[in-house]
Amino acid sequence: MLTEFELIKHCFNWPQNNETIICAVGDDASIVEVPRGYQLVQSIDTQVADIHFPATAPAQLIAQRALRCAISDLAAMGAKPQAFHLALSLPKNTSQAWLESFSLGLRACAEEFNISLIGGDTTSSPALVVTLQVQGLVSAGKALTRDKAQVGDDIWLSGEIGRSAAALEGVLASPETFVEKDSGLASDYFYPQAQINLGQKLVGLAHSALDISDGLLQDASHIAKASNVCLNFSAAHIPTSELAVALCGQAEALQLALTGGDDYQLLFTAPQQAHNELKDLNCYHVGQVEERKAHSEWVLLDGQTVSHKSMGYQHF
Amino acid sequence: MLTEFELIKHCFNWPQNNETIICAVGDDASIVEVPRGYQLVQSIDTQVADIHFPATAPAQLIAQRALRCAISDLAAMGAKPQAFHLALSLPKNTSQAWLESFSLGLRACAEEFNISLIGGDTTSSPALVVTLQVQGLVSAGKALTRDKAQVGDDIWLSGEIGRSAAALEGVLASPETFVEKDSGLASDYFYPQAQINLGQKLVGLAHSALDISDGLLQDASHIAKASNVCLNFSAAHIPTSELAVALCGQAEALQLALTGGDDYQLLFTAPQQAHNELKDLNCYHVGQVEERKAHSEWVLLDGQTVSHKSMGYQHF
Repeated sequence: MLTEFELIKHCFNWPQNNETIICAVGDDASIVEVPRGYQLVQSIDTQVADIHFPATAPAQLIAQRALRCAISDLAAMGAKPQAFHLALSLPKNTSQAWLESFSLGLRACAEEFNISLIGGDTTSSPALVVTLQVQGLVSAGKALTRDKAQVGDDIWLSGEIGRSAAALEGVLASPETFVEKDSGLASDYFYPQAQINLGQKLVGLAHSALDISDGLLQDASHIAKASNVCLNFSAAHIPTSELAVALCGQAEALQLALTGGDDYQLLFTAPQQAHNELKDLNCYHVGQVEERKAHSEWVLLDGQTVSHKSMGYQHF
Repeated sequence: MLTEFELIKHCFNWPQNNETIICAVGDDASIVEVPRGYQLVQSIDTQVADIHFPATAPAQLIAQRALRCAISDLAAMGAKPQAFHLALSLPKNTSQAWLESFSLGLRACAEEFNISLIGGDTTSSPALVVTLQVQGLVSAGKALTRDKAQVGDDIWLSGEIGRSAAALEGVLASPETFVEKDSGLASDYFYPQAQINLGQKLVGLAHSALDISDGLLQDASHIAKASNVCLNFSAAHIPTSELAVALCGQAEALQLALTGGDDYQLLFTAPQQAHNELKDLNCYHVGQVEERKAHSEWVLLDGQTVSHKSMGYQHF
């Protein structure tokens, strides 16, 4: 049995090639540089076994899914991924093989997105808890935020939504099955497509953006409230997935698209002159930003109020 | 019952006064600036209920102790605290009152150390898990690391050690008791004195440093290995606490000082010409950095090998 220090060194100390990383894993703290003219965008994201993912899922899928979900917040800000920290709380009986598999999945995903593991903490815990703190660079003052949607903006989605939610039942039915990337709905659940490249292209094009983690309508209300506008969606234009429609039918697929949270597509608003450019980026125009009347709803569907229970995932 | 978003806003959205914080809690991610000529030092630290602290301890003590422990890593690098992220995993039955108490303790400590809460994630979990990602600024290239101890350096401690370990039995006997700061041994456990001011003063004075979290001898081996030297301690000069000696006797107090982990004092090495200045800073000269002979020990006590089980805390 390796000691804690040996185990961490063995699993989480792969070479990093990034000149802004001055010191990574192995000291009391990491040291990074932020190049002149840039700001550092950061987010922290926790996933708990059997709450955010099935505890018996393959460790490498758990790891890389957690990293994809976390860096989705960087995409939503228009940032280029730079580095991340891992806080991993493990049940006492965790095997070295599990940890090695987790490490493999994490590293493959980190290399895909060119993000460096620069620090971490491994602890014992009753439950498996994966916390990732991710960070990226954005030109100073250019980050995409939630508070700059303007009346008259088009509302856009970066891709089909509801796919991951449609996959959930199947994933939970056989959680321990290893899933290949691009192999159908289950792969939508395990490999959410963090919109890192699109996010950076939206800088200077979009007025506001976020990633959808708790459901389209609920997350839309965050932009609406921060910008003090109303987001009016067109149900007919919400891009559902053919696979989800085939599995659940059109009505349920739409419901999953409106309230399912795990696709990590971007929701953003942009002025009408950006329309053609956004179409060329394969985005979906799904509604309009309107003036909000006092005490009225933040989010509408075809101009109508949406029932509260249809809004999305509540964490408690 | 407040929704998740209302609860977070209520408890964790206090005003921040720091011009390097461009965007804090409330968007997909935070945005910070790193002033020209500085680097960002970062660390992540997890504490799990009934592993790192008693689950029934007062919430405000749990919160502020976790933050003190986390920023100790910034002290060890010589950094000035700037900002932190909180990932909080809570059992389902957590009350709003508990969360408000936690928030009070966290805020008081954050204000004491002038560090801004800039982001977080709150999740449900079988166990209470507190992860803090902390960050601070250091002049570029000046951070204190573990790998620059030199043969001939004096070894120093920033203060008495073993106090928190001596307090542990009493803390565990009545974990729910609220403890005031500076009220004896139990307060050493709940209010570890992160050496933030001293750490910054050591920049340019010390060659290497770390904070003691897993026990003096075990942590000393990290400096020894990173610098490829031997750290030889003088048992008679290890500063034990009078309170610990009174409680446990001299021999046990020394043992706790060598292996107890929770004081968060700094261990550092410095050239002999810094001796008077470090004495004036009330530091303790506790040994010498020596050449390490091939295949010999990394750490010695009065020139002798230390038995493996006396080395310190193993996390697994």
